[in-house]
Amino acid sequence: MLDAILRSIAPADGDWFARAQERHQTLTKPPGSLGRLETIAARLCAIQSTLRPDVSRRRVVVFAADHGVVAEGVSPYPSEVTAQMVANFLAGGAAINALARSSGSELSVVDVGVGHDVPWIERPAADGVQFLSRRIRNGTANMVEGPAMTADEMQEAIGIGIEEAERAARAGIAVLGLGEMGIGNTTSASAVTAALTGCEPSRVTGRGTGIDGDALARKIATVEKALNVNRPRRDDPLDILRKVGGLEIAGLCGLCLGGAANRLAVVTDGFIATAAAALAVGLSPNVADYLFAAHLSPEPGHRVLLDGLRLEPMLDLEMRLGEGTGAALAMNVMAASAAAFNDMATFESAGIAGKE
Amino acid sequence: MLDAILRSIAPADGDWFARAQERHQTLTKPPGSLGRLETIAARLCAIQSTLRPDVSRRRVVVFAADHGVVAEGVSPYPSEVTAQMVANFLAGGAAINALARSSGSELSVVDVGVGHDVPWIERPAADGVQFLSRRIRNGTANMVEGPAMTADEMQEAIGIGIEEAERAARAGIAVLGLGEMGIGNTTSASAVTAALTGCEPSRVTGRGTGIDGDALARKIATVEKALNVNRPRRDDPLDILRKVGGLEIAGLCGLCLGGAANRLAVVTDGFIATAAAALAVGLSPNVADYLFAAHLSPEPGHRVLLDGLRLEPMLDLEMRLGEGTGAALAMNVMAASAAAFNDMATFESAGIAGKE
Repeated sequence: MLDAILRSIAPADGDWFARAQERHQTLTKPPGSLGRLETIAARLCAIQSTLRPDVSRRRVVVFAADHGVVAEGVSPYPSEVTAQMVANFLAGGAAINALARSSGSELSVVDVGVGHDVPWIERPAADGVQFLSRRIRNGTANMVEGPAMTADEMQEAIGIGIEEAERAARAGIAVLGLGEMGIGNTTSASAVTAALTGCEPSRVTGRGTGIDGDALARKIATVEKALNVNRPRRDDPLDILRKVGGLEIAGLCGLCLGGAANRLAVVTDGFIATAAAALAVGLSPNVADYLFAAHLSPEPGHRVLLDGLRLEPMLDLEMRLGEGTGAALAMNVMAASAAAFNDMATFESAGIAGKE
Repeated sequence: MLDAILRSIAPADGDWFARAQERHQTLTKPPGSLGRLETIAARLCAIQSTLRPDVSRRRVVVFAADHGVVAEGVSPYPSEVTAQMVANFLAGGAAINALARSSGSELSVVDVGVGHDVPWIERPAADGVQFLSRRIRNGTANMVEGPAMTADEMQEAIGIGIEEAERAARAGIAVLGLGEMGIGNTTSASAVTAALTGCEPSRVTGRGTGIDGDALARKIATVEKALNVNRPRRDDPLDILRKVGGLEIAGLCGLCLGGAANRLAVVTDGFIATAAAALAVGLSPNVADYLFAAHLSPEPGHRVLLDGLRLEPMLDLEMRLGEGTGAALAMNVMAASAAAFNDMATFESAGIAGKE
């Protein structure tokens, strides 16, 4: 299944990009004056092969899973919080619920490997929230002792991400946002980033949800140990993902692949989501044509990944929450880009003089 | 009237700011993890004296006027374009129409000094657009030959801005966005910025809507000449505004004053709108408590002004269009800030464990 998907990911259409940029020259504004909104709109045209990009349906997909590495004391929060936050998503009380509603985005939450029971009595989720229970195992193994997961488990999680993208495409979604929840997953993302880029762990490991001095040193040592024990191959994204990744990172990697295969725009979120996107681009460079960087978080590894992907974030608001909150905010910028492109008058139609 | 308004502008309420920051600690997210969204929400609480900030009604107000200095060849567009663009706003075909709609903001367009007839047959403006014809004169005088306007004209334009803020407050608007249209007005904004900050004109004069090398040198020389001829007093914002400002800049300055007096949040736009905001803060330092910086444009004077106001822009998308387009985009960020603050569950209500 993965091979078939990888083969089916085509580049976005450069001709439509060029035609969109030509159309921008005719709209009632000085050439280039909408800045990066113009590039975003032209990229949407290239993805959708159109001069009428439609981003009216948008969905943030949050993959949730736990991490065995939490046993090393890398997070100030206990693993139980992952399940508690999933319940919070379903009840509509988390930041991503507020920001998804505010940006007119749907929200889908997928349990691919939460470690504890989700404290949720069978009842409908809050308005606009879908829940998929697709748990593969109760959290990953502790990566300092060996691979975080088996190849089969990884393939299954990637497959669930691909399925989520296909389901969204069938429902008419045009933009997918990446979201994640998993106590301990900045540690995993740091290990993935170090393995993928060759950077020292100390350069790509940060304070996550808010650890201080000693705990940061322990977190860096944990990443180093995980890499020493597992020795992931830099040129093999699947080897990296299986050994030091996470089930939610695998799901997001699959969502990027499935999104690109179905010609959907895919918006990253923070450090963890961007690590998943970087793995997807490692598997198929054409995925980059479908990726948009939502924001820059203060995690030091995030900028390293974005530079490697040659993506410039739309927002820099010092957010470091994850859950897809940055993706949801960036959806507004993408909607605005498309609105200006689709709805503006031309110099000719409005009877306005051009440059002298 | 101006003296009365200046006396009525009180600081925002620091107690409510502190209470809002306390509430942020109880919401289901790591402390501080929503970054600048948290500060924005707390500032809204301080402005509205509440822990339930309401930004559901938002309005961008675009002041339009022409500039006599266009005779010096400082813009690639003829003055006629100002009136043509006003007609485009009314027809709903400009970038600000698309972006205001996309961000759920109303749009009000005020002619305070357009130099030509607006090519608009009497018919209703597009949905969500209001037009006010309050023309004081047909564009300013050429500031290289003397003051751009008289004291009476300036006072009238400021008064119209104050009235617009009061009208918005009565209508239940919570956030005002600054917008402007006026061929030649980056030249005026550069002169205002140089006069207000003491910076050399060459440091705060840029390419505006897109002039190249020779024209930029001419534009800088024009700003220098306007300052030499008029010698505005650095410590006197009204002297600066009258001599080298514009009628739309005066209107926006009034909008900032009236917004602050009525305890509305006021969102800047690009370089010209920020120059107007800086003049308003010069007249009443308390205005700064109500100001939010929407975005950073590539105009070199814009960063100088924002630094002086100690405001950090929410967005940096290389936009340089004006019209309130940056303000409209930033409205989404403000709405998201308030949504997260108002709608999120607390650790206690959601039954979620805190930091260990």
